[in-house]
Amino acid sequence: MAVTRRTSRDIRSESRLDVLHALLAAGEASRGDLAAETGLSNATVATVVSDLLEGGIVTEARLTSGRIGRPTTTLRLNGNRGRIVGVDVAETYVRATVFDSALDELFSAEVATDEHDRDPDSVIDGIVRALDTALEGAHATRDEVLGLGISLPGGMQRWAEVSLVVPNPTWHHVDRLRERIDLPIVVDNPLKAIATAELWFGEGRRHKSMITVNLGTGVGAGIVLEGTILRGAQNYAGEWGHSLLAIDGRRCRCGRNGCVEAYVGAAGIQQTLAAIAPEHRLASEHMQREFIEALAAALAPPAPDPAVTETIERTARYLGSAIADLVAIVNPEMITLTGWTAWALGDHLVPAVRRRVMREAPGDAAADLPIEVSTVRGNSVATGIATIALERFLGDVGLVTTRVPTAL
Amino acid sequence: MAVTRRTSRDIRSESRLDVLHALLAAGEASRGDLAAETGLSNATVATVVSDLLEGGIVTEARLTSGRIGRPTTTLRLNGNRGRIVGVDVAETYVRATVFDSALDELFSAEVATDEHDRDPDSVIDGIVRALDTALEGAHATRDEVLGLGISLPGGMQRWAEVSLVVPNPTWHHVDRLRERIDLPIVVDNPLKAIATAELWFGEGRRHKSMITVNLGTGVGAGIVLEGTILRGAQNYAGEWGHSLLAIDGRRCRCGRNGCVEAYVGAAGIQQTLAAIAPEHRLASEHMQREFIEALAAALAPPAPDPAVTETIERTARYLGSAIADLVAIVNPEMITLTGWTAWALGDHLVPAVRRRVMREAPGDAAADLPIEVSTVRGNSVATGIATIALERFLGDVGLVTTRVPTAL
Repeated sequence: MAVTRRTSRDIRSESRLDVLHALLAAGEASRGDLAAETGLSNATVATVVSDLLEGGIVTEARLTSGRIGRPTTTLRLNGNRGRIVGVDVAETYVRATVFDSALDELFSAEVATDEHDRDPDSVIDGIVRALDTALEGAHATRDEVLGLGISLPGGMQRWAEVSLVVPNPTWHHVDRLRERIDLPIVVDNPLKAIATAELWFGEGRRHKSMITVNLGTGVGAGIVLEGTILRGAQNYAGEWGHSLLAIDGRRCRCGRNGCVEAYVGAAGIQQTLAAIAPEHRLASEHMQREFIEALAAALAPPAPDPAVTETIERTARYLGSAIADLVAIVNPEMITLTGWTAWALGDHLVPAVRRRVMREAPGDAAADLPIEVSTVRGNSVATGIATIALERFLGDVGLVTTRVPTAL
Repeated sequence: MAVTRRTSRDIRSESRLDVLHALLAAGEASRGDLAAETGLSNATVATVVSDLLEGGIVTEARLTSGRIGRPTTTLRLNGNRGRIVGVDVAETYVRATVFDSALDELFSAEVATDEHDRDPDSVIDGIVRALDTALEGAHATRDEVLGLGISLPGGMQRWAEVSLVVPNPTWHHVDRLRERIDLPIVVDNPLKAIATAELWFGEGRRHKSMITVNLGTGVGAGIVLEGTILRGAQNYAGEWGHSLLAIDGRRCRCGRNGCVEAYVGAAGIQQTLAAIAPEHRLASEHMQREFIEALAAALAPPAPDPAVTETIERTARYLGSAIADLVAIVNPEMITLTGWTAWALGDHLVPAVRRRVMREAPGDAAADLPIEVSTVRGNSVATGIATIALERFLGDVGLVTTRVPTAL
């Protein structure tokens, strides 16, 4: 049978992950708290905690005494086990973030990259420079690094004959990357990274099925079902940004016409503004993030820019319709929005998006569906890919079985 | 934690289902064959078979002697355990099919319904009449019925203010249905039924993630992930027929504009023909199934009808684009097409659909993606909903734990 079989080893692994998630959420907790939070028995929690203590993943925090009974030892993640690095390779920058082994952020370094330079060695150089700068800032050495996660927009590989997305060639040159950086590397794409960040740090702790929508240059969806990230047969699942909003619609950089991204990606929003007010000063802003932030500024009272207001209304309509499609196909319990467009424009977009989704999703599928800007802040791609690297490390030391492999 | 926890009881239940699936596929098999087919150990198969024999679900077929060693007992599903009935409530008919407990079809009866009569009692009357006629034809009594599965297009409930889909009110009158029919009833929607049929009788046995696209009056997708049907938070998952192909496009009967169904549902295909050749005789054919079958006839050599040829080309383009969206979001291993449009027009549609999906799906997600007309024939909705009723019966007698409940 093709279906993956769960074993009791997987169940142990899941219990360990549940305890780690609960500990990450609480910061500090007793074994009793962990049992209450995870629904695991006291005996299971005791065994799991013992495994995690032995592996140096968890440490005893302090002895607390309640009003009655014996004092209790609280536990927390062990930040001194080593360092984890998450690298977000984006269209216009490479950002490396060093975390301690409790996933607390220590230092971040960003290297600008030239989006017209598609030479894989340049991308690899950018990764190495960002990594070394971030490690230096965190007073850490490569020896201390337990895992290095690298996020590349890999869903785009071989999409078009010549891709407009910089990092594609890197996928084919990951061996060269490993030669340059002799560390345990995992490579995955940003959708899987943001879904992982949401799963560990955001709404994923409260909802078993959930979608995180990423809005920036690229657009996509991190889909979590039954607590597990949906990857699909070749790790393409979630490429909703390249599903249709309008057959024969706007040209998308992926080569298809009418994709969701061509309407709600940063360049798409700019195209909407240009259609409303061709002479608008922001219609020719060259930097995408600056464009999005300028839109937010232009909406401020007392005199919000009418062309920008109209742009936001149309964008909310496009986004709401496209999210209603996700609801029709996947019917999640919760949707969060992330990425710099969501952070800058979320307050302006969300109420109208909610109304649209409610109207267009099938039946009452959206009646009680929360749609919110994600509470995971900072660079959620870096956080998520670092978490994937930590999960891989936990797998390498035998504490976790990963049923679904990362991309590379 | 919101995530459902797997227990060793679930694992036993999965082993039993695996053995039943394998037995259903093979017809007759020895314990050794079942171990080889399922990947379960000989000891597990022996225990599972003993449970199923004791429950009367499986029976010993005969003693076969190989060339060497002791003779072997083969097993098969026990068709005499009782009867299972599957009822497909569609827009224009109610069809009840009686199966034996090995899911072999015994007798089918169809009752025409008036699609303008939305009185729930009329729908319930139709169900009762079809049920009784089918039981009579199968020489069976109600006492022998282990389970009755009823498929209603429930995804449409409360969709529009006044729905155009007949059976909606029935959902709210399921108690009245239970009063009229004192049998163990399960109600679910056709997408879940076709996915179940594919899982037990079709490609689901070979692929862990798979989508079955239903093409008829309604359009939708049965999504199977990791061997489990995706239901979503409120059982709406798979309502891809009501995701957008074209924002602000054709009016859909669900109330939204531009839905996939408005282009590739039977009425949508007719609208395409009417756009190409408004005076075409088939553009005014009132019966949808007759219309689809007449299209197939009109494509026959030596002189295929040019307007119909053009209609098929456009429909393949719409369907291919919409399936590429499913691939972008879910990235399945396999796609099958079912429903009477697929059976009548599949040979004409599939090659062009495949080309379109290959071109429009992200990266190489569709490079090796099989897209085929489903091998599950007959009424796959009735077969699937009967299978759901059988699963429910297996649950009631304690042989299977159903983690994801049926709709009602």
